[in-house]
Amino acid sequence: MDRHYLWHFFEPKGVAIVGARSTPGFGFQLPIWMKKHGHEDKIFMVNPRGGTLHGLPVYESLSKIPPKVDLAVIITPAPAVPRVLLELAGAGIKNVIIESAGFAETDESGKALQEKCKAIASDKGLRVMGPNCVGVVNTENKFATSEAIEAVLKPGRIGVVAQSGVFGSILLDCFPSKGLAISRGVTLGNRLGVNECDVLDFFCDDPMTKVVLMYIEGAADGVKLRASLERITPKKPVIVLKSGRTAEGKAAAASHTGSMSGSDEIYDGLFAQTGAIRVSGVGEMIDFAGVFDRQPLPKGNRICVVTTSGSMGAVSIDAAVKGGLVAASLSDKTVNRVREGSPSWMNVRNPLDVGPSGMFRKAFESALDDAGVDMLLLFCTIPYAVIEGFGAFGINARMWLGPIGEIRRQAPEKPVLAAITGHPDWAQQMREISGDGVSLVEYPENAARALVELERYARFKKERE
Amino acid sequence: MDRHYLWHFFEPKGVAIVGARSTPGFGFQLPIWMKKHGHEDKIFMVNPRGGTLHGLPVYESLSKIPPKVDLAVIITPAPAVPRVLLELAGAGIKNVIIESAGFAETDESGKALQEKCKAIASDKGLRVMGPNCVGVVNTENKFATSEAIEAVLKPGRIGVVAQSGVFGSILLDCFPSKGLAISRGVTLGNRLGVNECDVLDFFCDDPMTKVVLMYIEGAADGVKLRASLERITPKKPVIVLKSGRTAEGKAAAASHTGSMSGSDEIYDGLFAQTGAIRVSGVGEMIDFAGVFDRQPLPKGNRICVVTTSGSMGAVSIDAAVKGGLVAASLSDKTVNRVREGSPSWMNVRNPLDVGPSGMFRKAFESALDDAGVDMLLLFCTIPYAVIEGFGAFGINARMWLGPIGEIRRQAPEKPVLAAITGHPDWAQQMREISGDGVSLVEYPENAARALVELERYARFKKERE
Repeated sequence: MDRHYLWHFFEPKGVAIVGARSTPGFGFQLPIWMKKHGHEDKIFMVNPRGGTLHGLPVYESLSKIPPKVDLAVIITPAPAVPRVLLELAGAGIKNVIIESAGFAETDESGKALQEKCKAIASDKGLRVMGPNCVGVVNTENKFATSEAIEAVLKPGRIGVVAQSGVFGSILLDCFPSKGLAISRGVTLGNRLGVNECDVLDFFCDDPMTKVVLMYIEGAADGVKLRASLERITPKKPVIVLKSGRTAEGKAAAASHTGSMSGSDEIYDGLFAQTGAIRVSGVGEMIDFAGVFDRQPLPKGNRICVVTTSGSMGAVSIDAAVKGGLVAASLSDKTVNRVREGSPSWMNVRNPLDVGPSGMFRKAFESALDDAGVDMLLLFCTIPYAVIEGFGAFGINARMWLGPIGEIRRQAPEKPVLAAITGHPDWAQQMREISGDGVSLVEYPENAARALVELERYARFKKERE
Repeated sequence: MDRHYLWHFFEPKGVAIVGARSTPGFGFQLPIWMKKHGHEDKIFMVNPRGGTLHGLPVYESLSKIPPKVDLAVIITPAPAVPRVLLELAGAGIKNVIIESAGFAETDESGKALQEKCKAIASDKGLRVMGPNCVGVVNTENKFATSEAIEAVLKPGRIGVVAQSGVFGSILLDCFPSKGLAISRGVTLGNRLGVNECDVLDFFCDDPMTKVVLMYIEGAADGVKLRASLERITPKKPVIVLKSGRTAEGKAAAASHTGSMSGSDEIYDGLFAQTGAIRVSGVGEMIDFAGVFDRQPLPKGNRICVVTTSGSMGAVSIDAAVKGGLVAASLSDKTVNRVREGSPSWMNVRNPLDVGPSGMFRKAFESALDDAGVDMLLLFCTIPYAVIEGFGAFGINARMWLGPIGEIRRQAPEKPVLAAITGHPDWAQQMREISGDGVSLVEYPENAARALVELERYARFKKERE
């Protein structure tokens, strides 16, 4: 099989930066950023003024650029772009990211300009990403066509494709603080050429990407999107946020990336049929991303909740059962194990509410070990005043709850989530004792919903096998 | 009108602590806590062993307690409680909090014990809160019958009533980090006597309480709950989280506070008819609490979104319109004001997507001033790499966005929310420039949903006037 053409975007041999300049802006910053991340030898700046910038030569024209260059990033004003595309074709550079704005997202003349570029690209066989985008980020080689914060470059397994550059950037800005890390990211902009289907096809075979997040305002090509989703979802989960659900949202999207967003019901059907996981907002997208990234797919639909708070247990099981999961019946063995040493007031059932018994660890271990339990939702918060009291006696979260992350490894095939509602310091302690194997979600109902989708996807995947 | 009896619980003249003891636990900590917060003169500890504790006398029997005591907190083991209740009656102390657990939430014998206590309370005219609860917190006088973290004692306007003590404590632990502060809080436990209706009646006339949060697993008395809600909701919003939505959740609730939770549809109807705002989880409860506490009720249903990200604008308006709000049509005056000085690519419509134009402040001021706009949702995040770039040129959030909190004051009658998705440091800068008048919510869809409920409640209230 041929290597996907998007590899030229993620791992270019040389990059022509058309519109590099010595005044503040993308054209000034991008070469600095590339240099800083070890790509100095790939920088080929182009500006009719020539000279040097950041200690590197500036080429006066694309015709003078060495043949190793296989990707161009255009940062010139919009009206200059058609000419640049022709020059790129002349220089034999086929892969192009147009970061410039001022095309179909603005007005009729912008639309005409975009059409003109599209005709050139089609005529000359150029693969164009954008315009009105910020291109790509690749954490594997720390290459990006736009500045991102350093923390985003930590390699992970989440692939991101976002129609909007700003949306993509803001999403990535959230990730480090949520414990998430990406493999590669793409922003599409006005999708003159490259669209979400191409990126899904790429992610499908990308060994680094395990989970895909997609933000779109409308499909570039509904038929192709269906085909691309059908190809990837049996292999990797695709979490989709699609705006333009309402007429007002559609209008907003149209004026933003110049896209038609279509009937929302059609999208609901498309995503349901292809096994894509549609989320209702940014928060859910972030919660689900972490869970799909870190957790195995459950073997069945039976959930057990182990909790220090009866109420949080009730809230959790409510959301789980409402979403279609089944409350696991604990085996006699589990019940007996937990009952042993438990105070008489403790009800040994599911949700396993251990209250202040100090039995959390034993309950967790027993439920994890129960063959009738397919997944676990933990709620371990203790009122913080009590925790402060414990502190005085030298007792910390690890002693009270057990080394949650280590215990969890005894059943790596079962998803384990923990809700960390409560005092921020306690949440921090939870992070420390949970390790990578337990996904932490702020609220119990959100953890339950993530498990609902994880199980739904597990069933979808099994059916397709 | 008589002063509500719950004032004795919030502002007692003297408190008998029955079960004070010199070994670790509530009976040891509570007197320390009360002393620390200026209530030393109200502490009257009771333990048959007598002696002194924390430098204060311990009474051997309730019969020896001074007459100023008007509240008792019972922390003895459950089996001792009936006897204590009889002694309290003998000593003329009518207001009682039973914090001990081991009653109807456990087993048949616990149920019988609770019935016995109930009969005594009824016979002797005692008002009993609990058992299986942690009583009250009052931020006005810093009195609490259980330890809470210091930050929770900051006086606010949110009244909290939670059936479960642990749930109440965990909720309060979250509050300071979410910028929320309570007036008074109550945990009900098994509701032998005092129930949510009593607390709603109290909050209805409590000058300090503006918004009420209620967590219940089931109504103690459906008819009374309807009456109490009907009385309070035209004056103050009541945000309700009720678990036991599913059979599994109901079972969990039953084993937790011994309550029957009833058909969920009945509750949906009850809350809708009485104007209570039912939330689907803890996260929504917290988001709504902040918005109802800080924001005025909108005069109409027309929302304007002002955003630095077209996509986040589309996500926001989608959620708002889906919930029943109307996207405001901007007046010619507003459009002209914003267009003046804006780059040509900027679409001046609602959502007002200012992109990287630097026009956020003008757009916000103009929309706020537009008579056709009833409420605003702001999305001000800028990709953090850009912010870092700004920083190098001495530009900060305040310069880029304007003093959001000050501007907001020009239209105090309109709700203004801001979604702060993005890098945590940017969220912190947003907190600093937003002030108290703008409610910050993490995700745009959640901000939109809060505005949907705020408008729904505004209509309800108007109809009842």
